[in-house]
Amino acid sequence: MKVPRAIELAALKPVLPVFLSYVLSFIYLGIYWNNHHHLFQAAKQVSGSILWANLHLLFWLSLFPFTTAWMGENHLAATPTAIYGFVLLMAAIAYYILQRAIIANEGRKSLLALAIGKDWKGKLSPALYLTAIPLAFVSSWIASGVYVFVALLWLIPDPRIARALEKREQ
Amino acid sequence: MKVPRAIELAALKPVLPVFLSYVLSFIYLGIYWNNHHHLFQAAKQVSGSILWANLHLLFWLSLFPFTTAWMGENHLAATPTAIYGFVLLMAAIAYYILQRAIIANEGRKSLLALAIGKDWKGKLSPALYLTAIPLAFVSSWIASGVYVFVALLWLIPDPRIARALEKREQ
Amino acid sequence: MKVPRAIELAALKPVLPVFLSYVLSFIYLGIYWNNHHHLFQAAKQVSGSILWANLHLLFWLSLFPFTTAWMGENHLAATPTAIYGFVLLMAAIAYYILQRAIIANEGRKSLLALAIGKDWKGKLSPALYLTAIPLAFVSSWIASGVYVFVALLWLIPDPRIARALEKREQ
Amino acid sequence: MKVPRAIELAALKPVLPVFLSYVLSFIYLGIYWNNHHHLFQAAKQVSGSILWANLHLLFWLSLFPFTTAWMGENHLAATPTAIYGFVLLMAAIAYYILQRAIIANEGRKSLLALAIGKDWKGKLSPALYLTAIPLAFVSSWIASGVYVFVALLWLIPDPRIARALEKREQ
Repeated sequence: MKVPRAIELAALKPVLPVFLSYVLSFIYLGIYWNNHHHLFQAAKQVSGSILWANLHLLFWLSLFPFTTAWMGENHLAATPTAIYGFVLLMAAIAYYILQRAIIANEGRKSLLALAIGKDWKGKLSPALYLTAIPLAFVSSWIASGVYVFVALLWLIPDPRIARALEKREQ
Repeated sequence: MKVPRAIELAALKPVLPVFLSYVLSFIYLGIYWNNHHHLFQAAKQVSGSILWANLHLLFWLSLFPFTTAWMGENHLAATPTAIYGFVLLMAAIAYYILQRAIIANEGRKSLLALAIGKDWKGKLSPALYLTAIPLAFVSSWIASGVYVFVALLWLIPDPRIARALEKREQ
Repeated sequence: MKVPRAIELAALKPVLPVFLSYVLSFIYLGIYWNNHHHLFQAAKQVSGSILWANLHLLFWLSLFPFTTAWMGENHLAATPTAIYGFVLLMAAIAYYILQRAIIANEGRKSLLALAIGKDWKGKLSPALYLTAIPLAFVSSWIASGVYVFVALLWLIPDPRIARALEKREQ
Repeated sequence: MKVPRAIELAALKPVLPVFLSYVLSFIYLGIYWNNHHHLFQAAKQVSGSILWANLHLLFWLSLFPFTTAWMGENHLAATPTAIYGFVLLMAAIAYYILQRAIIANEGRKSLLALAIGKDWKGKLSPALYLTAIPLAFVSSWIASGVYVFVALLWLIPDPRIARALEKREQ
């Protein structure tokens, strides 16, 4: 967010789409942070492939500020909105790969594997992003709506892992 | 702070309000950091809602650099000064929610609940910010004075929790 | 990466070399992070000289954003590409010094010393960078190709240390 | 450091004073980091006043990028060079206060108090900065020379604390 030159409240109006994009990206990073926290809490070992899967996720997350600013500063124009969705898609795929790498290490009968189970949210999200990306060229408001909807789906930290961890402690 | 082009001491004069805003925001972030440190030291468990309350606080704190620069670069103009107060208010509310979430988790008879007690500072601060925000349009110096006063109120890390923690160790 | 003003996909085209440089630098930082992680995991003690060797490495890594942007924004022009290689070279030498400092502390018969062994990768990489730097003035594509090749050599976290650590745990 | 537009090696020439200032500031931050590390390793307890003394030090260190850029971009002009020294002075005083706060907490007969002893370096450095600041208006090269000299004095992490810690382990 660039600091506006003017000093009236109206000066904040052009900053509004940047602000809303910032809020959405902040929520997404919060979702990843919280779920990531739960994921590594449940992991007993960290292998080389897990470290790389983690860096791969970090790479896509590190592009969020760029795509957020591009989308926000252009008031949700079609291409920046589609690119924003593409980076969300890649981050979701990277998270999925990281989860697989950790499960592969922990074993198929591990607490984590059972806790994650069918992982419908992890499978639905990339499908929704894939739908939203072309929709951005029809209406960037629909595409953004899908991004907000997926964020809402995930807002609650994964109760499956939290629940399984509580059971273990008993 | 933008690096000034000129090389005389006078070149630092326009940087002065930016510098003073920076000092105030640094002190506020220091207050949050220290109290946050004491709060989490006293917490035995971290739940999903605590993680989200924490991210909510982080969100408002992450806006400090933007509002600090806007207020400082415009020499405490009315609107930026009011917005600065608004973000202070939201951060104070977010801290209050975080505290409630931790107490809810620890139990009403927990060490932390007793240590925080009536929490008059936590209740007075938002009231003072709420008063300062409209006052910014009368005189931004009065509003800033209130912000400085609230900072001074909090400058000492919460002795209630520190004292209670010491008792526990005995 | 500067946020482009335009909103078509074509607007991303001038960003492409910056993006590719960013990817390469991200991979390099990832390699250093992972190997660094393994190195300090295997170290039992941290001495003053290790702290300084570590800061020396950090210094060269801290120049990556500058050299990456200079190379990327100038579409791999000769001098920026050579300078990029020079910083890669210095980081590789700094890593080598850090490794030596840790081995000196752990002892020549330590697990780490045995795990690292002849360290052909650690010796080949500086030699390759030294070759690539003058080649940048012939063709910056060849030089960049060498940088990519060295990155690929290291992509897998050092199996020697990982293997030795596993043995210790048995 | 701003990425230069030009692509010849000559383009780096105006960046040189910025680079040298950056190197000096990096070394200073390294010195503070290492000594800070040793200081907190030797401290058994952290009190509220220590947290605040620590934030006070952090405040002055956080101004380094600003003063470094101002001095470097103006090729060591008198005022920026004096201001750079002033921030160095304040950081040195802040470090001294932090050290006092930790010793007050640990006790006058503690390992740390004995290890630090007369602390001639901690007393000589502020005196040297105080001399260098007015000298910047005579010759900024002499002033910078003093800053480099003080850095060299501290380059070795405090052997007093390291030695005392080793003794404790025996």
